[in-house]
Amino acid sequence: MQHDLSRFAINQITTKAWSMPEAIEGYRAQGVTGIACWRQYLDDYGVGQTARHLRDAGMWVASLCTSAWFDADTAQGMAQAITANRAILDQAAEIGAPTVVMVVGGLPAGSRDLHGHRARVTEALHDLSAHALQTGVKLGIEPLHPMYCGYRSVINTIAQANDLCDALGDTASGLVPDVYHCWWDPAFRAELQRAGAERILTFHLCDWLVPTRGMFDRGMVGDGVIDIAAIRGWLDEIGYRGVFELEIFSDLDWWRRPGEETVRIAIERCAPFVAQLQEV
Amino acid sequence: MQHDLSRFAINQITTKAWSMPEAIEGYRAQGVTGIACWRQYLDDYGVGQTARHLRDAGMWVASLCTSAWFDADTAQGMAQAITANRAILDQAAEIGAPTVVMVVGGLPAGSRDLHGHRARVTEALHDLSAHALQTGVKLGIEPLHPMYCGYRSVINTIAQANDLCDALGDTASGLVPDVYHCWWDPAFRAELQRAGAERILTFHLCDWLVPTRGMFDRGMVGDGVIDIAAIRGWLDEIGYRGVFELEIFSDLDWWRRPGEETVRIAIERCAPFVAQLQEV
Repeated sequence: MQHDLSRFAINQITTKAWSMPEAIEGYRAQGVTGIACWRQYLDDYGVGQTARHLRDAGMWVASLCTSAWFDADTAQGMAQAITANRAILDQAAEIGAPTVVMVVGGLPAGSRDLHGHRARVTEALHDLSAHALQTGVKLGIEPLHPMYCGYRSVINTIAQANDLCDALGDTASGLVPDVYHCWWDPAFRAELQRAGAERILTFHLCDWLVPTRGMFDRGMVGDGVIDIAAIRGWLDEIGYRGVFELEIFSDLDWWRRPGEETVRIAIERCAPFVAQLQEV
Repeated sequence: MQHDLSRFAINQITTKAWSMPEAIEGYRAQGVTGIACWRQYLDDYGVGQTARHLRDAGMWVASLCTSAWFDADTAQGMAQAITANRAILDQAAEIGAPTVVMVVGGLPAGSRDLHGHRARVTEALHDLSAHALQTGVKLGIEPLHPMYCGYRSVINTIAQANDLCDALGDTASGLVPDVYHCWWDPAFRAELQRAGAERILTFHLCDWLVPTRGMFDRGMVGDGVIDIAAIRGWLDEIGYRGVFELEIFSDLDWWRRPGEETVRIAIERCAPFVAQLQEV
């Protein structure tokens, strides 16, 4: 069966054991031409070599994951994070990624000042946005599930992310919603409507497992309790015509499987939710 | 050092290995006269015997934990849950608990209809509220962290809980905020202000550990990143004069320690945050 995968990308953390060239070839071999790249693989393989390989393989890039964390409690530390993130925006431009997914980091070590740190992160993103405009690569604000507030991101709701995009401007920034992070949120649909289609830079899919066995136990699309069909409907409603990325963190299951198997099942499971909208 | 523990209760799940009489005697031995009871211990020891022992020991009851889950997807299943919860309200009245902490359950098995199920839970709580009025025991709406949305509670923000209290009325219901469930929420302070002091039936303390190692890995007050001093300040601001309950779920640490040790450390750590406000 021929699936319409033209809007579909696999986020390469999903096939964690694969190197950059293995992921490129492994996805392409099964007809997936979209990839979201992670920095550790990019650094290992080299930015120039990655860019050439992607081009030669006919791949397109959904995003580069992720930003360096803004988790310092000194002005100097935040300035270093901004510098690091400027370099990441440059890397993204070189591989043709339209977006760097901003995972902004949790609280600085030893800090309990969540409110203050959120304000400092906003300020740092402001400073960074000038370089986003220069490179043409957008800051993709991804709200992370509240369970990651302590040590991965202090931006935890799509409403916060929309507020940030309002402040940063849509030329420099946009949203990266993820069903895993947002599915529980009573405001999820309303905040997608507030964002509108143009602000959504890429859209992450996976599933929430019941029971969830740990902090990195995401499920394959279809194995959990998220109503992805309904959410796809909300996106169609607002006219979203962009990318769907499968992104699975799974130290207990999917990260232990061969990449080929993960890609095969990913295509079967995601195809119903990622096809072009058939206009009637 | 003599601590002011007049507003302090220990939620008995914190000393999971102790039976009801062991918890009563173990808390009292160290000067804690407040207890939040859990149903499994109550059922084991018997409601009448528990009520007598509490009275003889000079203990007061902060709450009874928890409601039966409203996680059915049939009218009959929800009616059974309502009946079960009526009986729990009766038990609470008998042991002098002013509140049953409502943990409403996650999605029904096999369901992905989060929006619809939230509506059904609201309706069921409405049906139950008549019995709350009859018994004089309030429905204590506890929003649970979004990480528990799948299988413990579909009420996940303090805003949702305040909406529910608005609908149910403050004579039948109130809030049970818990720092663990709410600390990440940008609206936490504003929603406490919206609630006002009278709506808060009891207030749960513990801490969020970094890193968090699993779904039941709460920390002792002081060991994590929650700014409990600031939150206590917000409660003083709105004139809250009610109870502080320590409630720790910790299969990796505190549940493995002797109850005496947990109580001793709990008193040391919580005392600065639970004392009566010194009016100036």
